[in-house]
Amino acid sequence: MPRYKLTLEYDGAPFVGWQRQDNGLSVQQVLEEAAFAMTGETRVVAGAGRTDAGVHATGQVAHIDLERGWAPFRLSEGLNAHCVPHPVAVLAVEPVADDFDARHSARARHYVYRVVNRRAPLALDRGRAWRVKASLDVEAMRAAARALIGRHDFTTFRDAQCQAKSPIRTLDRLDVARDGDAITFAVSALSFLHRQVRSMVGSLIDVGAGRWTAADLAAALAAAERSRCGQVAPAHGLYLARVDY
Amino acid sequence: MPRYKLTLEYDGAPFVGWQRQDNGLSVQQVLEEAAFAMTGETRVVAGAGRTDAGVHATGQVAHIDLERGWAPFRLSEGLNAHCVPHPVAVLAVEPVADDFDARHSARARHYVYRVVNRRAPLALDRGRAWRVKASLDVEAMRAAARALIGRHDFTTFRDAQCQAKSPIRTLDRLDVARDGDAITFAVSALSFLHRQVRSMVGSLIDVGAGRWTAADLAAALAAAERSRCGQVAPAHGLYLARVDY
Repeated sequence: MPRYKLTLEYDGAPFVGWQRQDNGLSVQQVLEEAAFAMTGETRVVAGAGRTDAGVHATGQVAHIDLERGWAPFRLSEGLNAHCVPHPVAVLAVEPVADDFDARHSARARHYVYRVVNRRAPLALDRGRAWRVKASLDVEAMRAAARALIGRHDFTTFRDAQCQAKSPIRTLDRLDVARDGDAITFAVSALSFLHRQVRSMVGSLIDVGAGRWTAADLAAALAAAERSRCGQVAPAHGLYLARVDY
Repeated sequence: MPRYKLTLEYDGAPFVGWQRQDNGLSVQQVLEEAAFAMTGETRVVAGAGRTDAGVHATGQVAHIDLERGWAPFRLSEGLNAHCVPHPVAVLAVEPVADDFDARHSARARHYVYRVVNRRAPLALDRGRAWRVKASLDVEAMRAAARALIGRHDFTTFRDAQCQAKSPIRTLDRLDVARDGDAITFAVSALSFLHRQVRSMVGSLIDVGAGRWTAADLAAALAAAERSRCGQVAPAHGLYLARVDY
């Protein structure tokens, strides 16, 4: 059966998350229903990352198998037409080999976290970035972030409900950049624990605001205890930006 | 009476435009009501530019006179608190001299128009940019834009309802930049005619899509007839970005 790789953008606000759940509409359900409406086939759309409720994507990747062969252009146009009125867009469709798996074939996942550091509320970026009022020291956050890079037990920075067997992960990148009052965190790894990015970003904000030192953050990591995590950044500032294969 | 300069951000979507009107809520009304709620004073908030319904601002400027003197920080915090739940934010407050007038003292107005050039619908930038499906030639738009720079009769590019006495304006800048599928128009002048930016951008899109040549655009300008305008770009891609004094 032909397999297709889908590159996806979505606004996380109206969804219970990527994954199908009983308590509301998920991005996965929107796509599976669009595929059914278009093809009459009931298929699973398997995603690279299970984004939480409220988390956005500019480059989520998923795969779907369809009995009938489709020209990529027609498949993307048709799926987009059937996703209306939900804020889910298919950016690209590519035919892939049977052994391509959106989740297991991924070599790197890239997330972006957007903060706007100012007193005034967000009129235009409401729901698209986290407004942090306290003046943030980007250099201090950058210095503290170095402790997180590499292979560690990230128990402190994973949700208590995290299902992963091991809390060991290798963090490849955690860059902090400022452009005016916009602060962007760019975070990359092969894979992440549940709420790991939001837990790390929130704790770094504690450093940037002067509530924590870099040593506090390093000690929290070393403790490998969830209770030692700083604040958890809200979902609406987080974007799954790209998945590499 | 002390006068204050306000720098403002707003999402244009829910408003009938900047200016008070009988047919719905305006940005001006939100601010005047916030000022009344905070100070008990009934005052006019006078803006630098009368943005149309749906047009956004990241740097609109206005002034207000208040009987009582306020610390700028307290005034911005108070106005922001009273603008809730409307998507209007006061970014900065500065005390200014009595002869400062947001509209008449302005030396330059800077607008940004955001296009996303792709087939897929906008999941995240819905209402924040104009999605144009036809593949656009940025170089062609840049070349055509040169004809618009300088002092001209812009009758072709102003709305039939435009109230300005003269159709003569001097366009200082019309830059076109591409970053991936994002195309941004940066447009500057001392002042603009009604719908001038949207009329110029829409006509340039006609050039970028190959429906018009640069010569067609130059001929349309020279004709000085509204009927010769190309398409008018929708309001939701336009931002009043900055006003210089």
